[in-house]
Amino acid sequence: MLDQALTRQLRRIVGETHYRDDQEALVAHSYDGTPMLQSLPDGVIYPENTRQVAEIMKELAAHRVPLVTRGSGSNLCGGTVPVQGGVVMVMHRMNRILDIDLENLTAVVQPGIITAEFITHIESLGLFYPPDPSSMRISTIGGNIAECSGGLRGLKYGTTKDYVIGLEAVLANGEIIRTGGKLMKDVAGYDLTKLLVGSEGTLAVITEATLKLVPPPKSKKTMLAMYKDLYGAARTVSRIIEAKIIPATLEFMDNPTIRVVDDFAKLGLPRDMEAILLIEQDGDPEPVERDMERIREICESERADRVEVAQSREHAEKLLTARRSAFTALARLRPTTILEDATVPRSRIADMVLRINDIARKYDVSIATFGHAGDGNLHPTATTDARDPEEVHRVEQAFEEIFEAAIEMGGTITGEHGVGLVKAPFLEWKIGRAGVDVMRGIKQAFDPHNLLNPGKMFAKETRKRVVINRG
Amino acid sequence: MLDQALTRQLRRIVGETHYRDDQEALVAHSYDGTPMLQSLPDGVIYPENTRQVAEIMKELAAHRVPLVTRGSGSNLCGGTVPVQGGVVMVMHRMNRILDIDLENLTAVVQPGIITAEFITHIESLGLFYPPDPSSMRISTIGGNIAECSGGLRGLKYGTTKDYVIGLEAVLANGEIIRTGGKLMKDVAGYDLTKLLVGSEGTLAVITEATLKLVPPPKSKKTMLAMYKDLYGAARTVSRIIEAKIIPATLEFMDNPTIRVVDDFAKLGLPRDMEAILLIEQDGDPEPVERDMERIREICESERADRVEVAQSREHAEKLLTARRSAFTALARLRPTTILEDATVPRSRIADMVLRINDIARKYDVSIATFGHAGDGNLHPTATTDARDPEEVHRVEQAFEEIFEAAIEMGGTITGEHGVGLVKAPFLEWKIGRAGVDVMRGIKQAFDPHNLLNPGKMFAKETRKRVVINRG
Repeated sequence: MLDQALTRQLRRIVGETHYRDDQEALVAHSYDGTPMLQSLPDGVIYPENTRQVAEIMKELAAHRVPLVTRGSGSNLCGGTVPVQGGVVMVMHRMNRILDIDLENLTAVVQPGIITAEFITHIESLGLFYPPDPSSMRISTIGGNIAECSGGLRGLKYGTTKDYVIGLEAVLANGEIIRTGGKLMKDVAGYDLTKLLVGSEGTLAVITEATLKLVPPPKSKKTMLAMYKDLYGAARTVSRIIEAKIIPATLEFMDNPTIRVVDDFAKLGLPRDMEAILLIEQDGDPEPVERDMERIREICESERADRVEVAQSREHAEKLLTARRSAFTALARLRPTTILEDATVPRSRIADMVLRINDIARKYDVSIATFGHAGDGNLHPTATTDARDPEEVHRVEQAFEEIFEAAIEMGGTITGEHGVGLVKAPFLEWKIGRAGVDVMRGIKQAFDPHNLLNPGKMFAKETRKRVVINRG
Repeated sequence: MLDQALTRQLRRIVGETHYRDDQEALVAHSYDGTPMLQSLPDGVIYPENTRQVAEIMKELAAHRVPLVTRGSGSNLCGGTVPVQGGVVMVMHRMNRILDIDLENLTAVVQPGIITAEFITHIESLGLFYPPDPSSMRISTIGGNIAECSGGLRGLKYGTTKDYVIGLEAVLANGEIIRTGGKLMKDVAGYDLTKLLVGSEGTLAVITEATLKLVPPPKSKKTMLAMYKDLYGAARTVSRIIEAKIIPATLEFMDNPTIRVVDDFAKLGLPRDMEAILLIEQDGDPEPVERDMERIREICESERADRVEVAQSREHAEKLLTARRSAFTALARLRPTTILEDATVPRSRIADMVLRINDIARKYDVSIATFGHAGDGNLHPTATTDARDPEEVHRVEQAFEEIFEAAIEMGGTITGEHGVGLVKAPFLEWKIGRAGVDVMRGIKQAFDPHNLLNPGKMFAKETRKRVVINRG
């Protein structure tokens, strides 16, 4: 429970109705998109502008109360679960587009805007903002920045980090900083902009972002390549890159994912295939045409069973939507879905998928794998039941071994979902003790009293998952 | 003078001949590409591998001796002048390409390799590494990473930061960390890779870098647009971007630069023009053709006096080389050349050039301006004489006002050259007191005893330039 003097101050700052500590509000903000994690906050606050955020943070700092900032809470790493209580700050009221600059090709937005709404608006102006996480219809730009979200277009266009060129942020002590700007280049000191992207709300609260926009591609083609041989699919990925073609999208679904997605989206996908690649190229019409032709040849030479080019934009959208719905579709199978994010050099995709299958068999758990093959970013997804602790334990053991395999192959424990609570015990596997120490030092420099999203990214020695029923 | 026990240890680590403290070695490493700055180190060391770097740094840390790491010292911010003495570590012996991976399109290199040699090798394999600082024939990849160097291809392809995806680095205490990898995505903790890029040797010593390579463009066209009206040239820049064309190169030279470059390179450039734009587009042949046609129309509608398309690759190379030689050409005019790096949103290019001219007149100094117009990154360059302190003082006042103007226009004090010694007094203008405090906190976390390139980036209150004769 927060002390009364503090809650009075918080209500004064945002107005009576924008601070809540009723049970309903607390429960609603006790979890996020990540299964099996829940922890009640002491209060929930909805600021309207940067000044309010700064005032809130000054008050919380004075009272040494933790702050967890969130958008829609669609993250999958437990990034916004308030494990140490305190105040959850919801950014949805700060959802305006402040500026779109056609001469500089930049947009300035508040963090609470929904990603898909921003993208729709940008596209209506004939411009393009590439980062497209699968959660984009509910996630916010602020959340995307906090997690450095990727998406289906990451291979060619990069991730959120590549489009954030300036930030306004409030520090733990309530001071406001501004980094970067409408600038394509800025080397004035350490790159705080890129440091804050992906910092998961542990260093500062982002209150405004300047985003780089790019010209939209003039045309786009979508292709589905279907394989009875998993290795053929994986070799196709490497051979496309070796042929010096960087497709806009190069997605992978394994057989269990294909079946589930097809049940869900009713696309008539071939249920007997071991793997499907969903490939898109965009750009000027002639090179797109040439690239797709060359890609088709590569698919065929790697013994794809069928190669289909989408005959209309609607058909292509359907295929993309099907891929985007993989998580949702898998989530229908059993009460609990755990979607992971292991990433390897793209040349190791096949090895990694086979290794995941071996590990799933070893622990007798059900794992479907899909993901951004061109990036080497796989999402092995376990369907399980949180009410069965013994099975959940086996799932956790399996994922532990999957992370280990990713690291062994020169990969990482998370490609686009973040560390949060779930990956914290594994961070050291990727960056070593000295690396974690450096990161802790950075955290200490920004947030000496450990008030911003405490308990995330840095783990105590032992792994801990608070298992609850959501079935 | 270093204590004898330490120098014995250093000689033991690298071998007798690779540690020097003779006067010749000390003087040769007392300055860099930046005019009017000099300070003698106590010793110069040439490590051969990461293990030696780590051992050296452990020794220096134990003795609390400063370390300045350098490649070729071509930087323009005083970044490698050992202002607090100590040891200069020269990375030229660590100049190997360790791995080129065609499946993942990555290269792993040691920091001491010369940028142009690396690029030549990469291009011989049919691949492309875009960052091309004008100093690339002498600069090293390690130096480029330390300064986050840009270049002529920055507009379309980004700068060094965009191509560094993994690092091995040695911390101040001699511990080795590895960040990133052959990975297109990695969000395991704070982005130490991007933090180290552009950190100017103040946080760690880079001993290995994993670089992203890209497919080379299939064709390229080069165009020169000449203007009697400066505003016409500047408007052309904005209108090209507004037309949703991102050229590979979009360079600007003002009249004084044109004259000097033509004297130097004998290209028959029109000496009566107020401005020249050097424009390149690359990519597949058809879109390049279309873009160049559209760019020509824009140039003409903005009343370009002449528009010429290079008729051969040789001619195009000549034009590019001429632009790259601007600094060298200007340096022939008078004994001292001070090249600055103010950057503004690209829509403000014309305002900024006019403002620079006003300021030059006000202080009665001679400033020529050229630079990367598409990035808003200008290099106002003063030709002066370090032996005339009164004139130098006026030059410094002029630059101070130029930085102020850049900040006023939403710009920054440095786009690609770094802060070093020269911009340190101005850093706070760009990022504010709270921003500088955060950066100091990061520095403290990495380097608690302030041994890595001390005196750089963070200034004492007063501006200080050690003026010496080099005439």
